[in-house]
Amino acid sequence: MIIDHVSLETFTQQVFEKMGCPTPHAILAANVLLKADLRGIDSHGVARLSGYVRLWEKKRINSNPNIKIVHESFTTTTLDADRALGLVSAPQGMDIAIEKAKIYGCGFTAIKNSNHFGIAAYHAMKALPHDMIGIAMTNASPLVAPTHSTKRMLGTNPMCYVFPALEYPPVVVDMATSAAANGKLEIAQRTGKPIPAGWVQTKEGAETLDANGLKSGGSLLPLGSSVANGSHKGYGLAGVVDIFSGVLSGANFSEWVPPFVAFLEPLANLPGEGIGHFVGAIKIDAFRPASEFKANMDQWIQSFKVADRINPDQPVIIPGAPEFEEEIIRRKEGIPLHESVVLDLKQVAEKFGLHFN
Amino acid sequence: MIIDHVSLETFTQQVFEKMGCPTPHAILAANVLLKADLRGIDSHGVARLSGYVRLWEKKRINSNPNIKIVHESFTTTTLDADRALGLVSAPQGMDIAIEKAKIYGCGFTAIKNSNHFGIAAYHAMKALPHDMIGIAMTNASPLVAPTHSTKRMLGTNPMCYVFPALEYPPVVVDMATSAAANGKLEIAQRTGKPIPAGWVQTKEGAETLDANGLKSGGSLLPLGSSVANGSHKGYGLAGVVDIFSGVLSGANFSEWVPPFVAFLEPLANLPGEGIGHFVGAIKIDAFRPASEFKANMDQWIQSFKVADRINPDQPVIIPGAPEFEEEIIRRKEGIPLHESVVLDLKQVAEKFGLHFN
Repeated sequence: MIIDHVSLETFTQQVFEKMGCPTPHAILAANVLLKADLRGIDSHGVARLSGYVRLWEKKRINSNPNIKIVHESFTTTTLDADRALGLVSAPQGMDIAIEKAKIYGCGFTAIKNSNHFGIAAYHAMKALPHDMIGIAMTNASPLVAPTHSTKRMLGTNPMCYVFPALEYPPVVVDMATSAAANGKLEIAQRTGKPIPAGWVQTKEGAETLDANGLKSGGSLLPLGSSVANGSHKGYGLAGVVDIFSGVLSGANFSEWVPPFVAFLEPLANLPGEGIGHFVGAIKIDAFRPASEFKANMDQWIQSFKVADRINPDQPVIIPGAPEFEEEIIRRKEGIPLHESVVLDLKQVAEKFGLHFN
Repeated sequence: MIIDHVSLETFTQQVFEKMGCPTPHAILAANVLLKADLRGIDSHGVARLSGYVRLWEKKRINSNPNIKIVHESFTTTTLDADRALGLVSAPQGMDIAIEKAKIYGCGFTAIKNSNHFGIAAYHAMKALPHDMIGIAMTNASPLVAPTHSTKRMLGTNPMCYVFPALEYPPVVVDMATSAAANGKLEIAQRTGKPIPAGWVQTKEGAETLDANGLKSGGSLLPLGSSVANGSHKGYGLAGVVDIFSGVLSGANFSEWVPPFVAFLEPLANLPGEGIGHFVGAIKIDAFRPASEFKANMDQWIQSFKVADRINPDQPVIIPGAPEFEEEIIRRKEGIPLHESVVLDLKQVAEKFGLHFN
């Protein structure tokens, strides 16, 4: 099924309104999800809508939160998101960071007591129209084992950095710090195909090519995959994200990050509140004229585009460029939805007395 | 040969003085190099001293630089290092960042026209006594090919993040964004053993287990190693470091970063000046009380220390802990130097009329 993005966004907004979100929140949350679908990050768009609904039903998401500043300095803010959708708290945190960066050169917001925030790139990219570098990261359900361990201690904890260019689209690095994002694994599960070595280990810590290895009690491997190829670096990066997002904000961290799936209860004796995010903006003009920076970014991008190829038919990819191109196509041609997602959205519609499709 | 660290530091300082460094610069540069040797990062300590000397002989390093602020805001500084040793410019940049963070919550310094800065952790760890998070990164000689390319476009571009804890040593994540650091490859070259798949590709872009594959015109692979295991993420991270260090500061970037080895000339038509660094400090109290943060860091560390092991004899490693333990041992027992390094240092001593050993 292919659906135009405006209809899908309107439907998504209606669902959030039915959950009790104030209209501005519902508009914002729908916009974040649709941005993922437009960019081709299908695992983080409306495919997750029913997951948010289930967390709301469990009262783990507060649809009408009182998001408040609990600590701040000239350049920093700590938000208590009051169990908000991360889709709402993260853009608000980023807006504050941008305002501080306008005055002081940079601004950062740590957010606790929040929930899944969608794609990191949405929040970081808010910096771009202001000629700022944008940063966004979040911790997430523990699925990744640190090197030498069988225990799920870290989320796929994405880090995102975005940089404006002049003629070219911005460089957008938005990556899970695990070898494979969970979304890729879900696709392999649907198709039943074996997965590459280095994505998942069994619950004993052995290599597996089974896409269901995670469901069977195994764990995702950090970026680097093996000891020889530097999995301790992926583990270290996931740790950096966890500390900025969880420890610095006062949210949960490590094994205590509450799971996204509503059928799993959070652990007892949580050290913090909800999940955590960290977002920030750095004004380029605070270091050098943005026009010079952006001209150099074009030169940076161009040098990679023309770099010698291994295979003449496979160009070197600029981070963020495929998603930029996909968005142009999907805005025009619509968003393809997998039949399982269509079914899921129909059930959500039925629950709220809405019409889908 | 084993040498006590004080003698080695004094010798190193004397070499820098013979190069014409003012005594405070020589003391600082020697301290940075010795910190690497104390922490067991042998590839980045005195083993590199002769390399700095050769760059100075080529007039690419200015031993008596006029390091000056060329741009600043409340929280940001851009330094022109005047071709200084990065061993000198980076700690100075970090000191400025810390002073700004004391007042404004965070501070960042971008440094252009610089040279190799040793271990990133030295600079980032300056934040720790101030209860700040420290950040340091640098670009470096192009040796790493982006995904799908055979061309060396990026350095091993390290990123470093350090976080203070309470009872435990700080968490120090200091990592090359390539699958293997160049130092590991050099060890394999000395021993003549094959290297793991995923470290190096041939000049045609094929897999190789030959430790000399890089010398033969190949390239290092980004963290992730293969397309299937996410090498585009290592490429993206190396790009982030290159943009913060090179593009934001006005230094060189991409393929134009001047090589560390003095026998290679920089490319023509450089887009910037020298190599670049980016360092910063974030005051924890600007987000939440540092005492609470550090107590939570202890809990974070403890949770990883006791995480279930794959092999009962192999504990989960906390980032930075092995180096912390190594420093305690080496401060007491001395620093082991490979015979090739001893020979190298003797030649340096002879050049300057100094005595080594």
